[in-house]
Amino acid sequence: KQQQQQQQPSSLTMYGRYTQDLGVYAKEEAARLRESGQRRSVADRSRTLDLLEYEKGRCAKCRTQKWMYGGLDSNVFLQYLAWVTYPVVLITFSAGFTQILAPQAVGSGIPEMKTILRGVVLKEYLTFKTFVAKVIGLTCALGSGMPLGKEGPFVHIASLCAALLSKFMSLFGGIYENESRNIEMLAAACAVGVGCCFAAPIGGVLFSIEVTSTFFAVRNYWRGFFAATFSAFIFRVLAVWNRDEETITALFKTRFRLDFPFDLQELPAFAVIGIASGFGGALFVYLNRLIVQFIRKQKAINKFLMKKRLLYPALVTLLVSTLTFPPGFGQFMAGKLTQKESLVTLLDNRTWAKQGIAEEFDYIGHSQAWKHPQVNVFVTLVLFIVMKFWMSALATTIPVPCGAFMPVFVIGAAFGRLVGESMAAWFPDGIHTDGTIYPIVPGGYAVVGAAALSGAVTHTVSTAVIVFELTGQISHILPVMIAVILANAVAQSLQPSLYDSIIRIKKLPYLPELGWGHHEKYNIRVEDIMVRDVRYITLNCCYRDLHNVLLTGHLKTLALVETAESMILLGSIERAQLQSLLSQQLGRPRRLEYIRERAAAEKKLMSVVSNPGSEDESQRISQEVRFQVRARHSCNIWTHGNTSGFAESCLLTLIMCKCKFIAEWEEKQLDEQVNFNNCKIDPAPFQLVERTSLHKTHTIFSLLGLDHAYVTSIGRLIGVVSLKELRKAIEGSVTVKGVKVRPPLASFRDSGTSSSENETTELHKLWDRHKSMSLPREHTPSESDEKSQ
Amino acid sequence: KQQQQQQQPSSLTMYGRYTQDLGVYAKEEAARLRESGQRRSVADRSRTLDLLEYEKGRCAKCRTQKWMYGGLDSNVFLQYLAWVTYPVVLITFSAGFTQILAPQAVGSGIPEMKTILRGVVLKEYLTFKTFVAKVIGLTCALGSGMPLGKEGPFVHIASLCAALLSKFMSLFGGIYENESRNIEMLAAACAVGVGCCFAAPIGGVLFSIEVTSTFFAVRNYWRGFFAATFSAFIFRVLAVWNRDEETITALFKTRFRLDFPFDLQELPAFAVIGIASGFGGALFVYLNRLIVQFIRKQKAINKFLMKKRLLYPALVTLLVSTLTFPPGFGQFMAGKLTQKESLVTLLDNRTWAKQGIAEEFDYIGHSQAWKHPQVNVFVTLVLFIVMKFWMSALATTIPVPCGAFMPVFVIGAAFGRLVGESMAAWFPDGIHTDGTIYPIVPGGYAVVGAAALSGAVTHTVSTAVIVFELTGQISHILPVMIAVILANAVAQSLQPSLYDSIIRIKKLPYLPELGWGHHEKYNIRVEDIMVRDVRYITLNCCYRDLHNVLLTGHLKTLALVETAESMILLGSIERAQLQSLLSQQLGRPRRLEYIRERAAAEKKLMSVVSNPGSEDESQRISQEVRFQVRARHSCNIWTHGNTSGFAESCLLTLIMCKCKFIAEWEEKQLDEQVNFNNCKIDPAPFQLVERTSLHKTHTIFSLLGLDHAYVTSIGRLIGVVSLKELRKAIEGSVTVKGVKVRPPLASFRDSGTSSSENETTELHKLWDRHKSMSLPREHTPSESDEKSQ
Repeated sequence: KQQQQQQQPSSLTMYGRYTQDLGVYAKEEAARLRESGQRRSVADRSRTLDLLEYEKGRCAKCRTQKWMYGGLDSNVFLQYLAWVTYPVVLITFSAGFTQILAPQAVGSGIPEMKTILRGVVLKEYLTFKTFVAKVIGLTCALGSGMPLGKEGPFVHIASLCAALLSKFMSLFGGIYENESRNIEMLAAACAVGVGCCFAAPIGGVLFSIEVTSTFFAVRNYWRGFFAATFSAFIFRVLAVWNRDEETITALFKTRFRLDFPFDLQELPAFAVIGIASGFGGALFVYLNRLIVQFIRKQKAINKFLMKKRLLYPALVTLLVSTLTFPPGFGQFMAGKLTQKESLVTLLDNRTWAKQGIAEEFDYIGHSQAWKHPQVNVFVTLVLFIVMKFWMSALATTIPVPCGAFMPVFVIGAAFGRLVGESMAAWFPDGIHTDGTIYPIVPGGYAVVGAAALSGAVTHTVSTAVIVFELTGQISHILPVMIAVILANAVAQSLQPSLYDSIIRIKKLPYLPELGWGHHEKYNIRVEDIMVRDVRYITLNCCYRDLHNVLLTGHLKTLALVETAESMILLGSIERAQLQSLLSQQLGRPRRLEYIRERAAAEKKLMSVVSNPGSEDESQRISQEVRFQVRARHSCNIWTHGNTSGFAESCLLTLIMCKCKFIAEWEEKQLDEQVNFNNCKIDPAPFQLVERTSLHKTHTIFSLLGLDHAYVTSIGRLIGVVSLKELRKAIEGSVTVKGVKVRPPLASFRDSGTSSSENETTELHKLWDRHKSMSLPREHTPSESDEKSQ
Repeated sequence: KQQQQQQQPSSLTMYGRYTQDLGVYAKEEAARLRESGQRRSVADRSRTLDLLEYEKGRCAKCRTQKWMYGGLDSNVFLQYLAWVTYPVVLITFSAGFTQILAPQAVGSGIPEMKTILRGVVLKEYLTFKTFVAKVIGLTCALGSGMPLGKEGPFVHIASLCAALLSKFMSLFGGIYENESRNIEMLAAACAVGVGCCFAAPIGGVLFSIEVTSTFFAVRNYWRGFFAATFSAFIFRVLAVWNRDEETITALFKTRFRLDFPFDLQELPAFAVIGIASGFGGALFVYLNRLIVQFIRKQKAINKFLMKKRLLYPALVTLLVSTLTFPPGFGQFMAGKLTQKESLVTLLDNRTWAKQGIAEEFDYIGHSQAWKHPQVNVFVTLVLFIVMKFWMSALATTIPVPCGAFMPVFVIGAAFGRLVGESMAAWFPDGIHTDGTIYPIVPGGYAVVGAAALSGAVTHTVSTAVIVFELTGQISHILPVMIAVILANAVAQSLQPSLYDSIIRIKKLPYLPELGWGHHEKYNIRVEDIMVRDVRYITLNCCYRDLHNVLLTGHLKTLALVETAESMILLGSIERAQLQSLLSQQLGRPRRLEYIRERAAAEKKLMSVVSNPGSEDESQRISQEVRFQVRARHSCNIWTHGNTSGFAESCLLTLIMCKCKFIAEWEEKQLDEQVNFNNCKIDPAPFQLVERTSLHKTHTIFSLLGLDHAYVTSIGRLIGVVSLKELRKAIEGSVTVKGVKVRPPLASFRDSGTSSSENETTELHKLWDRHKSMSLPREHTPSESDEKSQ
C-alpha cells in the first residue's frame, strides 16, 4: 500500500513531462523541465531502430512542431503556418520519397503479406529498396501527426527483415533455401511486427494469425510466440535502459480498481458499445473504399492528381491539419493532442464529467485539452469522434506507408469514453446497490470501445488481447470479449475487413471466405466452374508448340499430357522451365556454336566467292538489330556482346551479317522434338475430380495455398480451376460491390515513375519481337508479374 | 484508495470462510459460520451442471471429509480411517461406475478429441452413455481429493454436449447433417471445455487449439471465442448470483502490486524456473508412461488386477491418502489443503519466509498449513513438490475420468513459490537499487512456475494466457512468456506432450510432428513408403470378388479401378457401401422373394410328390439353424422371424427346409456381376504421385485429416499410403520408445465387462459363418470398430 502511494507521484511526473514538452506550460516548473530535458537527451542518443518510428513521432513532432507553435504565441497566423507547414512538408516528403524509391512501400502492408502467405509470389514487396522506403516513409508519416497508424507497416517491415535475413542466410545454404521455411519465417515476422508495435506478444501473434491466415499451422504458433516475446521484451527493455521507466510495464498502463472493475448491470452498456462499434467499423471500411474509388473515378481530378503526384497528399494534410489547428476548430476536438496523448487521456481512470474528484483534475495536463471553457466535454468527444472518423478514413488513402489500426483504436477509445462518461453522468454513484459506492470507470469503457472498434474494422477478436497487454490490466476481460464479439458479428455481416477491402481494391489474388450465407454453394461442383479449354503441352511436342503455347497463355504453370488424344495428365511444368528449354534450344551457346561452325565453313567459301548483294542485306539487318538494342536496353545478350572482348565483337559482326541464316537455323530448331530430360516436371500437380464440391475445393485451395488445380477424370485432363474461377463462383456472377474492374495489379502499374515500370512489358510484345527477330530472352522480366496474377 | 481498503476485508472474509469450513476453527467465529452456512445452503440449491464438478469437489469433499476428520479429533486412528475411507470409496465407485457404463469415459479425453478432430471416427466416444459416465465419474473422482484435474474431462464433456446437440439438431435436417460442420462444432466445444473450467475464454480457445489441432481454420477461431466467452460468463455470473462474489472477477484473483511487478534483474530467476519446468514436465510425462507400462508388463500383477478391476484404484488411493494424512506425513507437505486451497495460498502475494509482514500472517488461514513448527517452509515446499509429483503421475493412471492439468499446475506453482521464497530470502530488500524498496513477490514466481510446468507437460504456450485470466493480472506477462517458451523448448526436445504420450499408449491413430531433427526426411518419397499390394475392386467384378476382398482386408475404403489390367483409378468405395451392396444382393427381401417364388413352385410339386428322405435332411439343417440362433442372439433376422406374424413363421419353416436350395441360390447370386448404380462412389479420393516428398505428404495428411491416400502414376493405381506407413516413415523403423506393441484399440478391448464386448467380433468369423450358412448380416456390428482403426 505504501509502495503504491510512493509510486503514483513518480508516474504522474511522467504525465507531467509531456505537459512540459508542450512549452505552453513550461514556465510552471522550469526546474523540473531542465532535469527532464537532460534525461531526454540521454535517451535520444541510445535509440535503436526498434523505437525509431515511435520515438521520431514523439520527439520530432511533439517537440519541433509544438516548439514552433508555442514560440509563436503572439501571432495566430504565424502559429497556423507553423502548425500546418510541418505535417505538409513531412507527408509530401514521405509520399515523394516512397514514390521514387519503392511504391510498393505505400500503405499498410498487411494485405500484401496476407497474399504472400497464401503462397502468391509478390517478390517486389520484399526487397531492400522497399525496406528503406517503408522505414523512412513511415517515420516521416508518423512524425507528421496525421491520424495514421504504424501496426500494418511494422508487420511489413518485420516481414522485410525476415525475407532479407532468409535471403542472406540462404547464401550459406541449408534449410533456408526451402520455400516453406521462408513462409514460416514470414509468419513469425508478422507476429513480431504487431508484438513490438504494442509490446503485446500474445495479442501480436493472434492478431497476425487472424489478419494473414486462413488455415494456420500450430507448429508456427510457437515460433511466433518466441519471436514476438523477444521483440516485445527488447522494445520495453529499451525504455528501462533509457530510464523512461523503472521496470518493464505496459505501454499504456491503466490503474483501474481491481476489486470491483465493473458491475454486472453495466454489461448492456458494453454490449451497446460492441454493436455500435460493429456498425462504425463497417462504415469506416466502406468510407475508406468510397474515397479511394471517388478519387479514381473522377477522371479530371485523377489526371490532374496523377500529374502532380504530391498534390493529393499535401492537400489532404493541409485540410486535416487546418481543422485540428488548436486556436481554430481544433479547440473543440482536443486538436493539440497527439495520438498517443489522446489515448493516454482517454484511458485515464478519472471521470471527466466531474463528480467529486474535480480537484484532482488540473493536475493531469493533457486531460485539460478535452475541456473547453464554453463547450461541454460530451460535445468535444462527439466532435472528436466524428472529425477523426472521416479524417482517418481520408488520411489512410494518402500514398505513404501507413496503417489505420491506431487511428481507429483511438476513435474507438473516444467512443467508449463517451458512453462511459454518459453512464457516469447518469449514475453518479455507480449502479451497485449493496452498501459500498463503486463509481463508474469511464476509462474501462474506453478500453472496451477501443478493442471493439479496432476489432470491427480488422475483423479480429485478438484486439481484446492487445488491449489487455497494452493497458496491463485484464480485469475487464468479459466486457471486452463480449463487445469485440458483437462488433465482429455486426461488422462481418456488413463489410469485408479493411485488409480484405484493400486486397480487393488493389486486385491482389484472394479467395473470399465461404461465409454464413453460402450454404447454397454446397451444391456447386468443380465441373460447373472449371475452364475446359486447358493449355497443355504433350510429351512428344516440338519446340514450335512450346513457343506457341507460351505465346497464347499467361498461366504460371502448364499441364503436361501424354498425347493430345489420351490427354492423360503426367504433370505440370513451370513456365520458366519451358522458357529456359526454349532458350537452351535457341540460346546463345548453341547459336554461337552454330555460327562458329558456319563461319569456319564460310571462311573457305569467302576466299572463293564474293557476293556484293548480300552485303546490302546484311547491313539492313544490322541496322534493325541496332534499333532493337536501343529500344530495350534491359536486354542483356546484345549489349553484353558489344562491351565484351575482341573475339566476341568479331562474332557480333558475324552475327549481324548472318542473321538471315540464323533465322533459317531457328526455324529448323523449332521443328525439333522437345527433350524434357533436363526439365523440372512437377509430377504431383494438384488434381480434383469433376464432382468435387465447391466447398471442398475452397477448403483445399485455402489449406494448400493453391492458385490452380487440374481437373481429371480417370487420369484424363479435362479442365483446370484457378483462383479466378473459384472466386467468381463464390461471389456469384456479380463482381464485388463497388470495385471497379481493372486489370490485375493495375494500381501498382499506375505508379509509373517507379523502377519497375519496364517490368510490365508483356510477354506478347516480347514474342512479337522474337518473331521478327527470333530472339528468345533468357530471363523474362515480366515473370514475377505473371506469377502474381 | 478508500474503496480498495474497504474491499480487502470482504474478500478476506472469503478466505476466512474456507477456514471455517474446516471445522477445526469453527469455534472461533460461530456467529459468522452460521450466516455463511445459510448462504451456502442457498447456493447449493441453485447450482447448475456447469458448476457441478467444481462445487461437488469443494462441497462434498471439503465438508464431509473434513467434518468426519475434524469431528474425530480425539482418536488418530479413527481420524485416519475417516480421512482414507472417503477417497477410496469415491474413487472405487467412480472407477466401477465408469467401467460398467462406458469405459470410454476413462481418462482425460483430450487425446481422443485430438484424434477425432483429425478426422478419425471414434463414435463410441461421443455417446450419451459416455456423457453420463464421464460426468458422474468425474464428479466422484474430483470429490475424492486425489491429485486429479478436470480440464481434459471438461473438454470431453463439452464435446459430448456438442456431439449430442448436433445429433439432436440433425433430426431437423439442415446443415447439421454436414460432417465438416460437426467437426467445427467439436472444435468450438473443446474451447468451451477449457473456457468454463478456468473462466478463461481466450486461454481456453488457444489451449484447445494447441492440444487438439495441427492446422487450424481461422474461421473456427471466432466460433470458439464466442462459445468460450459465454461459457466463462455463465460460469462466473453464477458465482455472482450465488452471492459468492460481488461482481465478475477472476477465479484465483491475485493482488500483486501494479507499479513495479518485478525487477529486470529477476528475469534470470524466471528463466531458471522455465528451464527447470521443462525438465520437470518431460519427467512427468515419462514417469506417467513408465507407470502405465510397468502395470501392463507385470503379467502376474496385471492378471490379478484385471480380475479385481477396482483393486488398483483403491490401492493407489489408499497409498496417496495415507501419505497426505495431516497428522502423519501430511503435516510436512500441507496435506490438509485441497488443490484449490493450495493454489490460493501459493499465489498469495505475501512472503512466507517472513521479513517484516509476519504480523499479517496469522490472518490467512490456509497459509498456516505450509508452516510446520519444527520444519522450515522450504522443506515443506520441497516435500510437497516431490510427493505431489509422483502422486499426480500415479493418480492420473487410475481408470477414472480425470485430467492431469490441474495437479501439474499446482506443482508448478509450488515450484515457482519455492524459487520465489528463496529469492526473497536471498534479497530481503528486493533487488532494485534506486531509492524505493520493492520486496520480491514470491506469488509472481508461483504464477510463472504454474504456467511453465503446465506448458511443459502439455507442450502449449497458451498456459501463459490461462494464468493471466485465472489470476486477473497480466503484469507478469514477460516473465511468464519467457518461462513458458523456455519450458516448451526443453520439454519438446525431450518427450512428447502428455496427450501425445497417451495417444501412443492407447494406440490411437496419430501422425507425429515433423520436428526439428527431421530434415533428412525431406528426401524420402512416397514410393519409398507406400504399400504396393493394394486391395481393389474392378468395375466389372462379380459379387464373389467383393466378398473375398471384404474378407481379406480391413481397410475402411477400397479402391475402384477400371480393370485389373489398366488399373486406372476411378474412385473409392466405403466398406459399408460394399457390405450393403452384398447384403442387397443376398439380403432378406430378395431371399424372401426367391423363397416365395420357390414356395409357389414347390406347392405344385408338393401335392404331386412326397419325399421322406429330404425331411430328415431338412430337420438336420433346421437344428443347425436353431443352434446358430442361440449362439448369437444379437442377430436380428431369425429372431424377428420367430416373433412376427403367422405368415412369416410359415415362411420360416419353409426357409429351414429349403436351406440347401438357398445355399445354391446364393452361390449363383455371388457369380453375378456387381451393379454399382446405387452405390456411393467417392470420385475424388486423395491421390499422390510416387515422387511426392514425405514432407509434403505429411502436410497434406495433417491439413486434410486423411487416413489414407492412393498413389497413382499417370492415372494408374500403384500403391496406397496410410497413416501407419507415414508414421513408420517419420519415426524411422524404430517403434516409439518404450511403447509395447499391441493391436490397435487393445486397451479398450481389455475392458471386457463393457457392453461393447460383442462389437469386437471380427469380420472373419462373420464370413466363416456366412460360408457355412451363407447368411450375410445387414448391419455388421464390427463396423464402428473397423472404422476406428
